[in-house]
Amino acid sequence: MLPYNLDHVGIAVRDLDDSIARYELLYGATPLHRERIESQGVEEVMIAVGGSFVQLLEATEPDTPIGRFVAKRGEGLHHLAFAVPDIEFALAHLETEGAELVDKVPRRGSRGTRIAFVHPRTFGGTLVELVELPR
Amino acid sequence: MLPYNLDHVGIAVRDLDDSIARYELLYGATPLHRERIESQGVEEVMIAVGGSFVQLLEATEPDTPIGRFVAKRGEGLHHLAFAVPDIEFALAHLETEGAELVDKVPRRGSRGTRIAFVHPRTFGGTLVELVELPR
Repeated sequence: MLPYNLDHVGIAVRDLDDSIARYELLYGATPLHRERIESQGVEEVMIAVGGSFVQLLEATEPDTPIGRFVAKRGEGLHHLAFAVPDIEFALAHLETEGAELVDKVPRRGSRGTRIAFVHPRTFGGTLVELVELPR
Repeated sequence: MLPYNLDHVGIAVRDLDDSIARYELLYGATPLHRERIESQGVEEVMIAVGGSFVQLLEATEPDTPIGRFVAKRGEGLHHLAFAVPDIEFALAHLETEGAELVDKVPRRGSRGTRIAFVHPRTFGGTLVELVELPR
């Protein structure tokens, strides 16, 4: 089960517009994509850096995964996302190897993707997201 | 000042060999590079994922940046590294824009690189590393 790309690194922020402006000023890149995903309680932007993205995430409400993360730990690195060719295959492999899956069944992500999260207890205290891009 | 690539994502781990074995089992990739950098109190491996790397970092001693990070927060995402063509130019730009630089002057990184860190207060609670690859 070999991820073919590091799709993105997710960063939880308090204010998306402020963060975009600050990112542009410091690192000179503009978001390629912005999307609000009500089911995950998040609004995100994707900023291209080489072949990967920096993903900035703002909670739509306090009682959401990103809202609770920011309240507890402040802004910061939130997760790492690997692009995989076949997300069901990847999930089955991970489950066989004893991974703790947050999502046993893929759900809808942004950009028409299908995604699933793997619990930080599985590897290096790191929340990992699998992403299957639309064909 | 446009980073041309997301060079790597650094993950602090307790035990490098255990983590490599577990990463291989779960995600099926093998380290391309391993290096001990005494001046930073760290031993690292670089695992290629697409055009970027996952960097696993183990402290060589407890009283080092990675040792203190793991003692305080446990294993987890530690920093994000952008590849830049000219690190002095990038640092001068960031300083002009009010960034808080951990390293005002580049120092030696692994793989023959020159690196500098930008304080997490500068952007989104995220420790950012600039990397200038050897020519």
